[in-house]
Amino acid sequence: MAKNESNSDSQGTISRRDMLKTAGVGGIGVLIGASGLGGLMSITESKASSTGAKEVVSYYGKHQAGITTKTQNNVYFIALDVTTSKKEDLVKLFKEWTLAAALMSEGKPVGELSSNEFLPPKDTGEAAGLSASNLTITFGVGPSLFVKDNQDRFGLKQKQPKELADLPKFPLDALEEEWSGGDLCIQACADDLQVAFHAVRNLIRIARGKAILKWAQPGFQRTKHADAKEGTPRNLFGFKDGTVNPDVKNENQVNEQVWVQPGDGPNWLAGGSYLVVRRIQMFIEVWDRTNLKEQEATFGRYRDSGAALGQKDEFEKLDLKHKHANGSYSIPGDSHTRLSHGNGSEQILRRAFSYSNGMDPKTGSFDAGLLFLCFQRTPSKQFIPIQKRLSEMDKLNEYTSHRGSAMFACLPGTKQGGFIGETLFN
Amino acid sequence: MAKNESNSDSQGTISRRDMLKTAGVGGIGVLIGASGLGGLMSITESKASSTGAKEVVSYYGKHQAGITTKTQNNVYFIALDVTTSKKEDLVKLFKEWTLAAALMSEGKPVGELSSNEFLPPKDTGEAAGLSASNLTITFGVGPSLFVKDNQDRFGLKQKQPKELADLPKFPLDALEEEWSGGDLCIQACADDLQVAFHAVRNLIRIARGKAILKWAQPGFQRTKHADAKEGTPRNLFGFKDGTVNPDVKNENQVNEQVWVQPGDGPNWLAGGSYLVVRRIQMFIEVWDRTNLKEQEATFGRYRDSGAALGQKDEFEKLDLKHKHANGSYSIPGDSHTRLSHGNGSEQILRRAFSYSNGMDPKTGSFDAGLLFLCFQRTPSKQFIPIQKRLSEMDKLNEYTSHRGSAMFACLPGTKQGGFIGETLFN
Repeated sequence: MAKNESNSDSQGTISRRDMLKTAGVGGIGVLIGASGLGGLMSITESKASSTGAKEVVSYYGKHQAGITTKTQNNVYFIALDVTTSKKEDLVKLFKEWTLAAALMSEGKPVGELSSNEFLPPKDTGEAAGLSASNLTITFGVGPSLFVKDNQDRFGLKQKQPKELADLPKFPLDALEEEWSGGDLCIQACADDLQVAFHAVRNLIRIARGKAILKWAQPGFQRTKHADAKEGTPRNLFGFKDGTVNPDVKNENQVNEQVWVQPGDGPNWLAGGSYLVVRRIQMFIEVWDRTNLKEQEATFGRYRDSGAALGQKDEFEKLDLKHKHANGSYSIPGDSHTRLSHGNGSEQILRRAFSYSNGMDPKTGSFDAGLLFLCFQRTPSKQFIPIQKRLSEMDKLNEYTSHRGSAMFACLPGTKQGGFIGETLFN
Repeated sequence: MAKNESNSDSQGTISRRDMLKTAGVGGIGVLIGASGLGGLMSITESKASSTGAKEVVSYYGKHQAGITTKTQNNVYFIALDVTTSKKEDLVKLFKEWTLAAALMSEGKPVGELSSNEFLPPKDTGEAAGLSASNLTITFGVGPSLFVKDNQDRFGLKQKQPKELADLPKFPLDALEEEWSGGDLCIQACADDLQVAFHAVRNLIRIARGKAILKWAQPGFQRTKHADAKEGTPRNLFGFKDGTVNPDVKNENQVNEQVWVQPGDGPNWLAGGSYLVVRRIQMFIEVWDRTNLKEQEATFGRYRDSGAALGQKDEFEKLDLKHKHANGSYSIPGDSHTRLSHGNGSEQILRRAFSYSNGMDPKTGSFDAGLLFLCFQRTPSKQFIPIQKRLSEMDKLNEYTSHRGSAMFACLPGTKQGGFIGETLFN
């Protein structure tokens, strides 16, 4: 297993700029949040994250893990609604969640397994002995945490970023309340579904009396090939999905596209990222009756190679002007690739998973599709304009239906002793 | 990954008795089914199954793979109803399924990936390039394939084994039609869920016009520990599940407990096995509020070690007479372990997986539990008496509810050139 790869790249390395900043406010080991930027980390964490325990992604760092981390095989995504009305409960919750998430990320239970027989065990136990399986746990806050029914629920209203708002309604949206929204979210990813489920289950349990489950969706994907090489994962239409993604190892690119920067909005979110979730049902039986030419015209790419139509290689720069002999564009105007690309100015970090929940009793078909998760610095300049184009013209819409939608601000990371959410709540 | 371990043990090895039989009917390479026993295999298959391609479990053999095979991390289980009324369609279906299953078990697509752009691709494509991930595909036939609404649907009525009947109604059963029954079943297991789903999806697609999905349930489990040792998997109550299982490497034991033997009933099933499926909902939130002492008394075992109460080691012989100082039994009379064990005469081969389908919108809790799959030679002497005891007294019933149930006869294996079901349909 690739261990802690992109996470240590993006989190375990202290950039020269960070070092200067750190030195500027008093040397090594400064508390996150002290500067209001949440963007500093101590040398201690940096060392901890490079010790390299097997299949362990380090939890603490400038950014939360699970965003630029190499995508794991499984996700268990949950959205929650907050039931307490007290801000101190929320703070307590995030403090407990941080400790539990850090333990589980190391493959440890959230408390001693069987210490006191007169109490319920602290950890639910099903992951005992298992590898951490590259578990990452990523927390986010939704717009409704700030204001709901016109109520400033926790005195956080003035801290709500303009970008953290419900997405506009797109043409053809068929959203269902049972797959949409949430005051909070947790994305647990691991190479083993039992480990990912164990994580969300124990976090929900810790939240008892403070937050409840709103919706939940497991998912799967696969980047590692039989030859042990990594490749772009394929979605349930059999096409490569995620070819044009920012390079998570390029710090400039992720700062440009993924991480919220100081000055972008309220400082508490600097080092965080906006997550857009879309639960996209895929009509796989209809797709499977469609001929290959039509399928490839729909995506604008060849199925086997992933290359754009008229081109050779998956990662070649898109040649949108390439034409057939008859003068029509090789990559059709209504194809997913052309519309996603637009003028090339918008990029999002896609981290999508397929889902298949068994049979849909209403149709007798598989209830299957894509749990589309994407991270970005500025939704209004990234996901929203892309999705606006896609929702209006994308030929793929004939085979898909957006049934769920949510937006969350994924908080910046923290260091040992701190807690996720400290920059927001303090 | 352990490759083809128990499968090659139980399938790739020719017993002395088989060798004698084979010799008796004309030497090496005799067709399965020629003797009516389905119990012979050729030296060729034996060699093929020991070539040891990585993460490949050989498909062909005396028995179907996926029964005594080491349990993989994931299952995608589907039940189907037959829609055709013609026996020749069924035969055609099983022939096509056999070829497709054999290809997928080697990590290959079910047809050339992108050969003709004017036709839908033969393979749905999402597993292209992925490892076979120890995929096994196991086919079974349900009682309703033989007789439904008093109709002898395919002229097979006289071939229906007495043992292949709907299970009796047990006390506390809360079965739902949407999780029960089926004319046919397919159990696809793999260490990767994408590979398992790809398999059932392509098999369903091949069945178009002949059979439809009735219900479907994915699941997961984990036997491999962080230290790379294999251990008994834990269920979602955090307890080890499957400690007392027949030794799949002991040929006598699996012949005694798992494989239908010549003379047990109609000869077409010799070399096959009966599969009982129970979809058992687990009330994990209730369980998680129960103290450890009560949890351990409910199972009759310690959570951490898996040892029976009053004993030290998970695999120690059960001491059902062990008593507390106060004279009460250490393993309570209503505990799952004592009731499952009974007088020790019944054993089943458990191959269970946990499931978690997201949130149950009716309760707001996780829809989670156990997809209990067990294989056996004679249900009336194995699962049924065990479940009768459990359903009447098991303390675990306070925390679980049986929501789905089905019984299938898993067909004997076949050799290259033959097809699964040949002994039944020919």
